[in-house]
Amino acid sequence: MTNREPEISRALLLGHTADIALHRALEILRNESINPEVVMEFSPEKPGVLAGINDVKTLLNRNLPETGREVWALDEASSFDENEVVLRVRGPYASFGLYETAINGILSSSAGWATAARECVDAADGVPIVSLGAHHVHPSVVGVMDYSAVTGGASSCSSVLGARLAGVTASGTMAATLVIIMGDTRSAVEAFDRNMPPEVQRVAVVGTIGDEAIEAIEVSRMLRDRLRGVRLETAQTRGGVTPDLVHELRARLDQAGYNHVDIFVSGDLDPEKIQAFTDERAPVAAFGIGFHIGAARPIKFQAKIKELEGRPVARRGFVPGITLNPRLTRVL
Amino acid sequence: MTNREPEISRALLLGHTADIALHRALEILRNESINPEVVMEFSPEKPGVLAGINDVKTLLNRNLPETGREVWALDEASSFDENEVVLRVRGPYASFGLYETAINGILSSSAGWATAARECVDAADGVPIVSLGAHHVHPSVVGVMDYSAVTGGASSCSSVLGARLAGVTASGTMAATLVIIMGDTRSAVEAFDRNMPPEVQRVAVVGTIGDEAIEAIEVSRMLRDRLRGVRLETAQTRGGVTPDLVHELRARLDQAGYNHVDIFVSGDLDPEKIQAFTDERAPVAAFGIGFHIGAARPIKFQAKIKELEGRPVARRGFVPGITLNPRLTRVL
Amino acid sequence: MTNREPEISRALLLGHTADIALHRALEILRNESINPEVVMEFSPEKPGVLAGINDVKTLLNRNLPETGREVWALDEASSFDENEVVLRVRGPYASFGLYETAINGILSSSAGWATAARECVDAADGVPIVSLGAHHVHPSVVGVMDYSAVTGGASSCSSVLGARLAGVTASGTMAATLVIIMGDTRSAVEAFDRNMPPEVQRVAVVGTIGDEAIEAIEVSRMLRDRLRGVRLETAQTRGGVTPDLVHELRARLDQAGYNHVDIFVSGDLDPEKIQAFTDERAPVAAFGIGFHIGAARPIKFQAKIKELEGRPVARRGFVPGITLNPRLTRVL
Amino acid sequence: MTNREPEISRALLLGHTADIALHRALEILRNESINPEVVMEFSPEKPGVLAGINDVKTLLNRNLPETGREVWALDEASSFDENEVVLRVRGPYASFGLYETAINGILSSSAGWATAARECVDAADGVPIVSLGAHHVHPSVVGVMDYSAVTGGASSCSSVLGARLAGVTASGTMAATLVIIMGDTRSAVEAFDRNMPPEVQRVAVVGTIGDEAIEAIEVSRMLRDRLRGVRLETAQTRGGVTPDLVHELRARLDQAGYNHVDIFVSGDLDPEKIQAFTDERAPVAAFGIGFHIGAARPIKFQAKIKELEGRPVARRGFVPGITLNPRLTRVL
Amino acid sequence: MTNREPEISRALLLGHTADIALHRALEILRNESINPEVVMEFSPEKPGVLAGINDVKTLLNRNLPETGREVWALDEASSFDENEVVLRVRGPYASFGLYETAINGILSSSAGWATAARECVDAADGVPIVSLGAHHVHPSVVGVMDYSAVTGGASSCSSVLGARLAGVTASGTMAATLVIIMGDTRSAVEAFDRNMPPEVQRVAVVGTIGDEAIEAIEVSRMLRDRLRGVRLETAQTRGGVTPDLVHELRARLDQAGYNHVDIFVSGDLDPEKIQAFTDERAPVAAFGIGFHIGAARPIKFQAKIKELEGRPVARRGFVPGITLNPRLTRVL
Amino acid sequence: MTNREPEISRALLLGHTADIALHRALEILRNESINPEVVMEFSPEKPGVLAGINDVKTLLNRNLPETGREVWALDEASSFDENEVVLRVRGPYASFGLYETAINGILSSSAGWATAARECVDAADGVPIVSLGAHHVHPSVVGVMDYSAVTGGASSCSSVLGARLAGVTASGTMAATLVIIMGDTRSAVEAFDRNMPPEVQRVAVVGTIGDEAIEAIEVSRMLRDRLRGVRLETAQTRGGVTPDLVHELRARLDQAGYNHVDIFVSGDLDPEKIQAFTDERAPVAAFGIGFHIGAARPIKFQAKIKELEGRPVARRGFVPGITLNPRLTRVL
Repeated sequence: MTNREPEISRALLLGHTADIALHRALEILRNESINPEVVMEFSPEKPGVLAGINDVKTLLNRNLPETGREVWALDEASSFDENEVVLRVRGPYASFGLYETAINGILSSSAGWATAARECVDAADGVPIVSLGAHHVHPSVVGVMDYSAVTGGASSCSSVLGARLAGVTASGTMAATLVIIMGDTRSAVEAFDRNMPPEVQRVAVVGTIGDEAIEAIEVSRMLRDRLRGVRLETAQTRGGVTPDLVHELRARLDQAGYNHVDIFVSGDLDPEKIQAFTDERAPVAAFGIGFHIGAARPIKFQAKIKELEGRPVARRGFVPGITLNPRLTRVL
Repeated sequence: MTNREPEISRALLLGHTADIALHRALEILRNESINPEVVMEFSPEKPGVLAGINDVKTLLNRNLPETGREVWALDEASSFDENEVVLRVRGPYASFGLYETAINGILSSSAGWATAARECVDAADGVPIVSLGAHHVHPSVVGVMDYSAVTGGASSCSSVLGARLAGVTASGTMAATLVIIMGDTRSAVEAFDRNMPPEVQRVAVVGTIGDEAIEAIEVSRMLRDRLRGVRLETAQTRGGVTPDLVHELRARLDQAGYNHVDIFVSGDLDPEKIQAFTDERAPVAAFGIGFHIGAARPIKFQAKIKELEGRPVARRGFVPGITLNPRLTRVL
Repeated sequence: MTNREPEISRALLLGHTADIALHRALEILRNESINPEVVMEFSPEKPGVLAGINDVKTLLNRNLPETGREVWALDEASSFDENEVVLRVRGPYASFGLYETAINGILSSSAGWATAARECVDAADGVPIVSLGAHHVHPSVVGVMDYSAVTGGASSCSSVLGARLAGVTASGTMAATLVIIMGDTRSAVEAFDRNMPPEVQRVAVVGTIGDEAIEAIEVSRMLRDRLRGVRLETAQTRGGVTPDLVHELRARLDQAGYNHVDIFVSGDLDPEKIQAFTDERAPVAAFGIGFHIGAARPIKFQAKIKELEGRPVARRGFVPGITLNPRLTRVL
Repeated sequence: MTNREPEISRALLLGHTADIALHRALEILRNESINPEVVMEFSPEKPGVLAGINDVKTLLNRNLPETGREVWALDEASSFDENEVVLRVRGPYASFGLYETAINGILSSSAGWATAARECVDAADGVPIVSLGAHHVHPSVVGVMDYSAVTGGASSCSSVLGARLAGVTASGTMAATLVIIMGDTRSAVEAFDRNMPPEVQRVAVVGTIGDEAIEAIEVSRMLRDRLRGVRLETAQTRGGVTPDLVHELRARLDQAGYNHVDIFVSGDLDPEKIQAFTDERAPVAAFGIGFHIGAARPIKFQAKIKELEGRPVARRGFVPGITLNPRLTRVL
Repeated sequence: MTNREPEISRALLLGHTADIALHRALEILRNESINPEVVMEFSPEKPGVLAGINDVKTLLNRNLPETGREVWALDEASSFDENEVVLRVRGPYASFGLYETAINGILSSSAGWATAARECVDAADGVPIVSLGAHHVHPSVVGVMDYSAVTGGASSCSSVLGARLAGVTASGTMAATLVIIMGDTRSAVEAFDRNMPPEVQRVAVVGTIGDEAIEAIEVSRMLRDRLRGVRLETAQTRGGVTPDLVHELRARLDQAGYNHVDIFVSGDLDPEKIQAFTDERAPVAAFGIGFHIGAARPIKFQAKIKELEGRPVARRGFVPGITLNPRLTRVL
Repeated sequence: MTNREPEISRALLLGHTADIALHRALEILRNESINPEVVMEFSPEKPGVLAGINDVKTLLNRNLPETGREVWALDEASSFDENEVVLRVRGPYASFGLYETAINGILSSSAGWATAARECVDAADGVPIVSLGAHHVHPSVVGVMDYSAVTGGASSCSSVLGARLAGVTASGTMAATLVIIMGDTRSAVEAFDRNMPPEVQRVAVVGTIGDEAIEAIEVSRMLRDRLRGVRLETAQTRGGVTPDLVHELRARLDQAGYNHVDIFVSGDLDPEKIQAFTDERAPVAAFGIGFHIGAARPIKFQAKIKELEGRPVARRGFVPGITLNPRLTRVL
């Protein structure tokens, strides 16, 4: 997950994404020749998993003068507690004040995605999960979304860009769309098998047109040992994918002699539903998670100035001065 | 809100943000020389407000061949119902199949933000609202977030880029950070007044250091007629901003002769809290909304192929064929 | 529903089904030469639909001396209120005291079944319902159960005996068991069509082995105009039968040109689920109801002596004397 | 509980209580000369207590050919789990297919009554319970109802027929009706004592006309050592029977020197109310239970063909093949 | 309810019941020669009924100098709203500051009792209610409690002192204790009838020893036209007094020819239970209410200085200056 | 807490606060020359803390003849259980029957206050609590209220009379009223410090006019070592006093070098809120409790005659005879 190029756009560096109030504050301070050394702390309002801190570090490295600066942070992929300080920056205010908006935003969105992925990983209890969140967020953040999901524990992701950022191989089975366009599952599976290079695993989506069990046995008969597995994504209007369906399909595949064909599950999954599969010991090879990860709410982070030229300060309602957190390590 | 340049990145056009399964499906179809005319429909799973459709139109315009294509859509900023078709695309599958991920993502995120803003607008019952959501999303989408908020009904927004995309003036009062750095509200207000051009409204944040009412009367006495208003963003740890506080502050300002000084409210607002101000007729000049808009969950959209070479089709669990929707208009 | 032979067994007439305490009370009174004229009233503890009153009337007619007796009752199939008197018997206690247990039992069970059927009829809003309750009650009461269901408003029932008692034609489509034994839906439908006389409607159960829509279109193609309809009873483990499924199947049948093929629905239905079909205007030709009718709880009835030789009496806790009810008519 | 004659009516044997769909299926198979060996399994949809299995065994014994048949079952009065197979039948389908309706119905109703009785027995924690359910079910099933209640653990029952089927002595104290007809409790008790043979226990119902404690002491003074106990069945409109009332009555009887007079409790009892008596250690000699047992809902059983000529089969939605259950024993 | 002597004790006048902090504040102001004219307002934190204001007026009349004082108040027995000003006092602080504690306390307790009584009156819908609250409060406030209950709408009260303060006749039927001591209801009623002067109404408590209906008819037969009514206060352990019991007793009295005997109800009543009698049209002559009135919680009142030497002031969190309330009238 | 003069008024001794029904019962018994020895027991309907028993003892000592009397009671300040007998009186009925109302009332009110105080003490977990309840009850019971609060565990109370009855020093910090009248906190604190004798602790109320932290540091700077602490009573309209506020104020005082200044908390506290301070380890020196103690509901006590001339008796619904309670000790 190292040495990837950070996702820092030119718009961000120019401050176009910042609040105009910060532009004005910096202009006033410049006019008044005020540029104190401040300590600013960033903390979340609920527990979660940290992501995006490496991008933040790169941003600060480019802008803070080397002398006198001090940046402390938790590691990427760490768990954090409610109100725990995850980043502390010391430096001249003028050098980084404008980026308060962006740092908050990077941490908020990234932690939201990473935390949602971690919830699925915990519920899956050892079964791999794959992020299919790309359909549910603006394409401008698909890459960081999938990178954050992998940071939170996902084994892989569906977007090409996300996989590149996270240093994993993108994951994708046969698309249901291919079945619709080819007209039936049989033709789609044959075409997939004929055209894909051998290193792409044959996982056939079943139940798009006909009954899941009938199609699964049909494609098993066609591809035999070349078939790695079948994927279920039965629509909610047809009962969705349930532990009962997985158990039944497993029994029917085994009775037909296809014990080697694994079952992959996707479609409207969330941690609660994944937990049900775990609780009922349904034999699932991997879970694909779309909306729960891609559409995860950002976690709110707050930035607070806690020291001003060495003196403890705080807004009314907060404790002045630096907050102790032995888990922080110095990164700049 | 017209003729702005759409937010379509090169990564998107190259398909880097698409699911790898779609790349593979297109490769197979190409090898098999299959490129049918399809009709694909996009519909949301719950009601909301549409945003981003203009960007989608631009994307399709660039990629669909002019002959034979047909694109029908709801207007930007329209309300939509659960499961209502908001976009229908007819054309050769190979020309736009890869963008299914991106179209879904643009609509999902944009509608999420626009709908959240609309909820606030409805609750505010005529009082303007301003998006302060930039702190809560990744900077790569700050611009589209604020554009979507304005599409949903916000009067303005805090980010420079968002304001440019939406064609409004960015909005920002004096930052509380300025007060912390200057050491007290009085100095900060003086500096703000001294350094800002006359067209920037003087709205002083009060309650950052001392009592809201004491500071409000103090800054009123300093700026007199030049003061446009005061902004409250009292921390939750000190009771937050409530209708009672606004009523009390209004009474104290009026008793001191500062009837012209308006009260602006921000800090952890959501539609329910805004409704409380409306219900208790608290005299608020504008609401600033951060987390509820910026961290709004995307609304899930689904893409479905409904016709294939003129025949109605659908996945199992859905009604085959085009869905009637007289509200759609042809845009391409 | 008229002139059927009542369901009064010899065991009942001999008092074998009565409480032994009543046998003893009657023996004591006989020894003491006490046989007062009493008025006994029967009333339910919650609202419902009356059934079985004709059997009760027959029982009383056989046992009460013609002189001096007076029996007042609501009509079979009437609605009754909580605590409303539905039956009032005047006569010498020794002539009918032993049958208190049986009268209570007939009314309780029969009203339970009739009320459950009425609830389904009300929810179905004009669509016929058929009782399939025979699987869920002891065979000794299958006949009165189905008779009561028809009394409550069911159009027909599945048991041969119930249909005879109720004076309707028994109703039954192709059994799913036939599909299992023949091995596939196609063969079962062919055999059904080949062997059943023309007056038996061809309604094919679909979804027993494969997908409902695929099988429905297959059997429509086989039987064409001879096919009256298809019946859905998808298992809960596969999502059950839902309004969405009916809508989808209707659309697929219509697109294939089989507008004349009706859809029948069964499987774990209750009034709430039926209401959902009604609310979503799902095009259902008839509902088959098993457990909700067959396993309906009896409604509790209480028998109370309210007059003794012309004087008002009652147990402690109840108002002495006859309860006025203008809805009663004299039947004996 | 052995060698009683089973409750199998002629209507049942002729198939009059069966679904007409089964009659038709059997006719078709006969015409087509199809009569495969099948394995059919019966399982409940929730936990409970088994009853009626002996009647089912008798029915199968009469109809299955001796060669090749195999019947496995749990023992009468066993507890069973949700979805546990309680009966497995192997044989030619034509020999028993028609009885699927009846077997399901016998097991459903009987298990419903037995389970309700068991719930009371468990709550009573050693204090005997007596079924008074005869008032609440159709007289055609009073016998099997009381037999099932005893199978579930009741010590006795009120109906003459039920007691004969279950091999116990019917149980019944003085009827409240006797008090109403005689005009007061004193006269009724005297008549009861005068006319009943010595082996019938003297248990006087008290509180029918006057206060429970006053009447209890009055009848104790009358019958002295001959009085076995008093029975309470205070109406709900007068507060019902509660643990407090039992404690108070016990104390007043003891203070008057009638420690030998036991207290029997009846009237609207269910397991929750019985539990309250147990929890508060109310000195109760026996509980009489009417509606909770008599009006118990049947427990739903499902019959499923799981093997066809030796091959595992199942409807869509269920696991094909025989379900292992080591608790079954072979009964035929 | 006029010209009674107010309940102002010597301890109160000397300030012994005041907070010591007020003693100290007054001492400091005296030493500093500060005695400004202030306006103090008293308002409740929830709606209710005012009582005790006459005592407060007397207290202020004794202590405020006649010149310059101004006292505005709502009338005794008025309803008031949440936060409505019910009393406004203008005068030199030193003359009444010490009594802030007592005024708050008088209004809080008195309004608590009056409001509880009003709730019962509203629920009784025209049937008189009588306060029996004396058992549930300290004897030092029994008088003001019962006076407040009458102010809230009670027709009478049980305490001798309360009746004198409220200017009504004390109300009390035959005590159940008399029955216990005399040994039975019959003897107690005879003694009551023999010894009480004719102007004391004969209302016999029934159900203390035996059944309510039996005793009611017995005492009716004894006193005939001299019997005004019977009172029910059945213990909760025997089911309490319910609308059903009243209906039954009414029917039994009427059948016995005692239509003139009214039914009085007491025992654990509150507005919800009274409402049930009203809703079910139970023929009750009067309700006796103990705990709900006597143990009513005080309603919190707050005293706030709103003007100081003519200038509007207030604590932080409250609106400075006099609160308009056109319902106030000047009383001093 | 010993040898104080009990709170027994002349009105009480004359029976003016008693129910008129008891006056009449005693008059009847006198006329009939009936004066049996009775045993009367008093018990509460829910658990709590006993107070007022000493006053009751004094009352009985004055009225019961020395010969033959027997009084058993729990100790003042004991905890009692639901329905536990806390007082048993044996003596001639005529000597104390009239005081049943008063004894119930004394115990009910006093136990209500003591129990409420105990709940606060338990939640405070070692931090002292002070009763500020005097504002919320009628001045006629302010003394016994504060005495009961101390009996329940409060360290002190605010009323002069309560402190005298309880044998403690009255407790009160600087009144907020003083701040309002002096115009600002600074002047009020100076005047307090100037005029109060040295033994009165300097505890300044802060936040009345301005921000709590600013005022706290200001008064600390003024009084330095003479300042014992600051008291918070922030209005609910400004967020109330919360653990967060206390932690913040503590940090700000410590940073300014005022570690010796303690924090006292008051304002709308109840056990739940106190528990929150305890749970979050907020450094509070003492809690002041007003409404929860002063406006505590009385606990219902019932008086029951359980023996009459040596025979066990009871009303219907209760167990006759003396209730065993080994915790009682003989006090007269």
